[in-house]
Parts: sequence; structure tokens; C-alpha cells
Amino acid sequence: MNKETYSLLENYMLTCMEDSAHDKEHVYRVLYNALEIAKSEDGVDYDVLIASCLLHDIGRKEQFENPSLCHAIVGSKKAYDFLIEHGFEIGFAERVKHCIQTHRYRNNNQPQSLEAKILFDADKLDVAGAMGIARTLIYKGIVSEPLYSVLPDGKVSDGENDTAPSFFQEYKYKLENLYTNFYTKKAAEIAKERQRIAVDFYNCLYQEANSAYQNRITLEDVVAGTVKKV
Amino acid sequence: MNKETYSLLENYMLTCMEDSAHDKEHVYRVLYNALEIAKSEDGVDYDVLIASCLLHDIGRKEQFENPSLCHAIVGSKKAYDFLIEHGFEIGFAERVKHCIQTHRYRNNNQPQSLEAKILFDADKLDVAGAMGIARTLIYKGIVSEPLYSVLPDGKVSDGENDTAPSFFQEYKYKLENLYTNFYTKKAAEIAKERQRIAVDFYNCLYQEANSAYQNRITLEDVVAGTVKKV
Repeated sequence: MNKETYSLLENYMLTCMEDSAHDKEHVYRVLYNALEIAKSEDGVDYDVLIASCLLHDIGRKEQFENPSLCHAIVGSKKAYDFLIEHGFEIGFAERVKHCIQTHRYRNNNQPQSLEAKILFDADKLDVAGAMGIARTLIYKGIVSEPLYSVLPDGKVSDGENDTAPSFFQEYKYKLENLYTNFYTKKAAEIAKERQRIAVDFYNCLYQEANSAYQNRITLEDVVAGTVKKV
Repeated sequence: MNKETYSLLENYMLTCMEDSAHDKEHVYRVLYNALEIAKSEDGVDYDVLIASCLLHDIGRKEQFENPSLCHAIVGSKKAYDFLIEHGFEIGFAERVKHCIQTHRYRNNNQPQSLEAKILFDADKLDVAGAMGIARTLIYKGIVSEPLYSVLPDGKVSDGENDTAPSFFQEYKYKLENLYTNFYTKKAAEIAKERQRIAVDFYNCLYQEANSAYQNRITLEDVVAGTVKKV
């Protein structure tokens, strides 16, 4: 891929990015992660890989505005149309379309090509470790969801069986178990190295929140007059 | 403080809370942290302490809408007016006002009373450890600020000398050095226990981000044609 093609795709990506959990730096990290993974694989088509990484999240805005839409499907169509419109070959546009269409975590659409598998893994790496925690928390801020739910008994829920959205619920539902779902050996290795900090952070945050709520009993004592004021 | 008074203040607080980094659960954590700290102090006026904790952030909305306002000043006046209006004694309303006015981290206004010191420490504890990291990230999402800045040489800035706002900038400016600024021994002890996870998380996040950006060189090679596509 030459500099002009790279800039054309990069600039199109930049016009499509908005929220800070899926901002342009996420796109660059996915691209750079993908290049790291590609070093350990044979026969990678770098043009398909780079184009797919740059354009993989261009359907995010549409999904954000209408949650019934899937950004992988919308983005793959936008990318295909953009590439055809700018004179790329149909075969190339189709290979990029496949990568983008299959990069989503909760998708039944599985990646088949090597480049699609690398994009999938590179994108998932950005939800692993401290980065996954950080991006999920930023996203909770954007959509105004809380850190945790408080159970009817006044204790902090660990998120395990929660139906109400929160950071702990998302951690249990999505972040905790992603470490076994990689296609490439390299990505699985990197993810494994990053698992400790994510687990450690969740456990500490849960403990800090929970220890505070244990003082509800003290509060009840004060309100009941058991603890005397001066 | 009896149940009716508690509910009156709690309900007023609830009508004032909005964003999820300073939401009602933050207020409850501060209240519960304060009660934990109070156990190790003699002569605490629990009525003043509980009222101050419940009402300490009721000026947040005003500061959010007009950043030239200080939520500690605005909130202390709102609390004073509310208490007088609801028949509390002037002396009580003044003591609560002092606590709220002096609870802010970047304030020249230092807490003088025991209850003001406890509120200050309890509020600062909620910016320590994993909770401080989590709340800062949520806030970055709300105000659309990024995780980090990218330096002109293409590397990730660690935040140290940044002027542009980001999570790393805030970590270096505010979170990293808060662990020595407590008035009570108990709060200092709890904060110290929570420091490790915050430092560990920052270091891991920086390393993860930085390691990705090192592949910019690979990208330049591909664009320059040094790495051949299949």
C-alpha cells in the first residue's frame, strides 16, 4: 500500500470517528496490534489488512444512533462502497468487506480469511487488559451507566447475574471471559499477559466499593440513635 | 439524626445529582467512608458529618454548566439555605456550610473542624485506588476527553508534561500524588492500601498503549514497500 492510498483510507476513517471509546486512537492501536500479530503469520495480505483495520469501525456512529443496527454490517458496506467508488478492484473490496463484517465479538459471522482473523484478534486485544477496562469505563461515562448496581440488601452486586447495565455487569458478561477467544497464537499470548491487571483491577474495585457499603450498618445505628452525637 | 431528617437531606441530594462520576453512589460511598473514619476519631458530631456528606456535591451541576463556578462554594450556599429554610439552627447550618466549602481538593480554603477534615478525607478516598481510576475514566467519557495524547514523534505521552487534557494528564496532575494529603490517620492508612492498584493500572495501561504504537515503524515499512504483500 502506498502513502496516497493509506492517506485516502485514513482520512475517510477520520471523518467517521466520534466517541472517545472508539476514537481514532483505538483504530491506530488495532492497526498496530494487527501488524504485530501479522509478523508471526505467513502469507498476510498487508493491503487488505491495513485497509480493514483503518475502516473496521466506520459504522459505529450508525449503531450508536440506532442500536438495532450492527456496526460491523453497516461498516463493511460503507467500506465496500467507498473502495469501489475510489477505483479499487472488486476482489479487494470484497476481502476488506469480509474482514469488517466478521470482526465483531458477539457476531455469529465468523472470520474465515487470515486477515479477518488478525483484525478480529487485534480488535479484541484492545478490550483485554488495562486498555479494555479503561475503554469500557469511558464508554460507561458516554452512555451514562453506573459502575455497579446496589442489591436490595444494600450490598454492591459483583455484576454476575445483573440485568441492569453497569461496568461490573459488562465486566462479567464480556471482559472476564474474552481471554480464550483468539484465532492467532500471538494475540492469545499477548492477551494472556494482560489478563492479570484486568482481574486485579476488577477485584480491587469491587472490594473498595463493597467495604464502603458495609458502613450502612453504622449509618442505621446513628439514625436509630445507638451512636450518640457529641 | 433521626430517620425523617436523614430522608429530608437524602431526597434533596437526590434531586441535585446527575453525572455518573459524581452520582448518588459517590455520595453514599463518601458518607460510608466518613463513618468508617469517624470510628477512629473522638468527639465527632455525627449530625453535622452526615448532613455535610449527603450535601457535599449538590453544587456539581452548576459547576458543570459553568466551569468558572466552584461546586464547593455553590454547594455550601445551597446547603445553608436549604437547612435554614427547613428550620435547622443557624449554628448547625454554618458548621455544615464550612464542611462543604472546604472539601475541595484544589481549594485554598482548608478544612478547620473535625467534621470538615473527615469529609475532605472521605471524598479524597473516593479518588484513590481503583475507584479513583474508574471515576476519572468515566468522567473522561462524559466530557469526551481521550486516554492519552500522542507526541509529535508518534509515541504515547505518559501525561507528565501534557497541557492537553487526557486521562494520563489527569493521573499525573491529580491522582498520582494524592496519597500524602490526608488529615486523618485512618484515611491515610486506607489510601495507602489502595495506592498499589492505581499505580499498577496506570503503568500497565501506558505499557499496553505504548507497545502498540511501536508498530508505527512496521506501518511505515509497509507503506514504503519494504514489507511486501503476498
